[in-house]
Amino acid sequence: MSLVLDPAAQDLLFREARTANTFTDEPVTEEQVQAIYDLVKYGPTAFNQTPLRITLVRSPEARERLVRHMAEGNQAKTAAAPLVAILSADNEFHEELPNLFPAFPQAKDVFFAERPAREGSATLNAALQAAYFIVGVRAAGLAAGPMTGFDFEGVRKEFLDDDHTPLMVVNIGKPGPDAWYPRSPRLAYEDVVTTV
Amino acid sequence: MSLVLDPAAQDLLFREARTANTFTDEPVTEEQVQAIYDLVKYGPTAFNQTPLRITLVRSPEARERLVRHMAEGNQAKTAAAPLVAILSADNEFHEELPNLFPAFPQAKDVFFAERPAREGSATLNAALQAAYFIVGVRAAGLAAGPMTGFDFEGVRKEFLDDDHTPLMVVNIGKPGPDAWYPRSPRLAYEDVVTTV
Repeated sequence: MSLVLDPAAQDLLFREARTANTFTDEPVTEEQVQAIYDLVKYGPTAFNQTPLRITLVRSPEARERLVRHMAEGNQAKTAAAPLVAILSADNEFHEELPNLFPAFPQAKDVFFAERPAREGSATLNAALQAAYFIVGVRAAGLAAGPMTGFDFEGVRKEFLDDDHTPLMVVNIGKPGPDAWYPRSPRLAYEDVVTTV
Repeated sequence: MSLVLDPAAQDLLFREARTANTFTDEPVTEEQVQAIYDLVKYGPTAFNQTPLRITLVRSPEARERLVRHMAEGNQAKTAAAPLVAILSADNEFHEELPNLFPAFPQAKDVFFAERPAREGSATLNAALQAAYFIVGVRAAGLAAGPMTGFDFEGVRKEFLDDDHTPLMVVNIGKPGPDAWYPRSPRLAYEDVVTTV
């Protein structure tokens, strides 16, 4: 076996974990979200820029406002999930860089003085962190339901500001009845990996 | 404790795992890369589009061509790493969608008929898969050294084609002497997570 990771952990995070479309009523606690963050905050990003920001949509009033911006097929499950998180990229992450990457505090001015460079970097690196977050949700024994089917500009205006770019909305909870489709096929190694 | 994941696995994947800048000479085998792929291929993407493509740069001649496109500070470690992978997004992923997402085979034409929509989706979802891949490298007991400091257009022309967008280059191997900086600080939960 070429992997060091325990098989039970492989199953929990990847092999048996699935994107959930239904959830039980069991709440997702603040302690669980903190534990997830305290694990996945260590995932690597360029210059440790860690641009991911997380908006937990807990109040019924906020949930209702969010559901209106979701694609029709995502509305019912977003309304019903125990917890919903909006994941976004902070395009002004560079302000924190001198603290976040003390090995090269000049990075803020050398690489990220211009907004377009920041936006590209923030989106890529926040996407990496979104994936770490999904892995972290599974590490907490919960299922994630990540969605990109929503009105991005609507969500930005409703919950964020001009300095934040929404990446995805994630339903979180214990999977409910008929929570997922059958597992879809994956590409063969030979179709994905080329050696030069 | 709010996490279900075994503490040893937490350490292996996040808490003790680090971005490596030096490596031992121990080779990274084809079997290891296959095992990594066979684990992380299950990570979720929108419509199971799985647009990540991996180019393993194994031959000395190809390695030399790659190193020329790396930023100066990344050249020596990219030349010395046991294995280097170019991760890219396949902007023509939609051709495979009817096979990859049988639950809604029309997705190819309904959502991805236009190239700009495909490019945005491919980049985001391949970035998620790049993060799963980094986690998978760690699951194999190896260290990853992901880098975005290189000439993207140069790497695209040298190793890919117009249908592929490079995302990052990743050095892979067992960590060598002085493999990393001291751990940089992370943002506090309160600075990242907002509740509405």
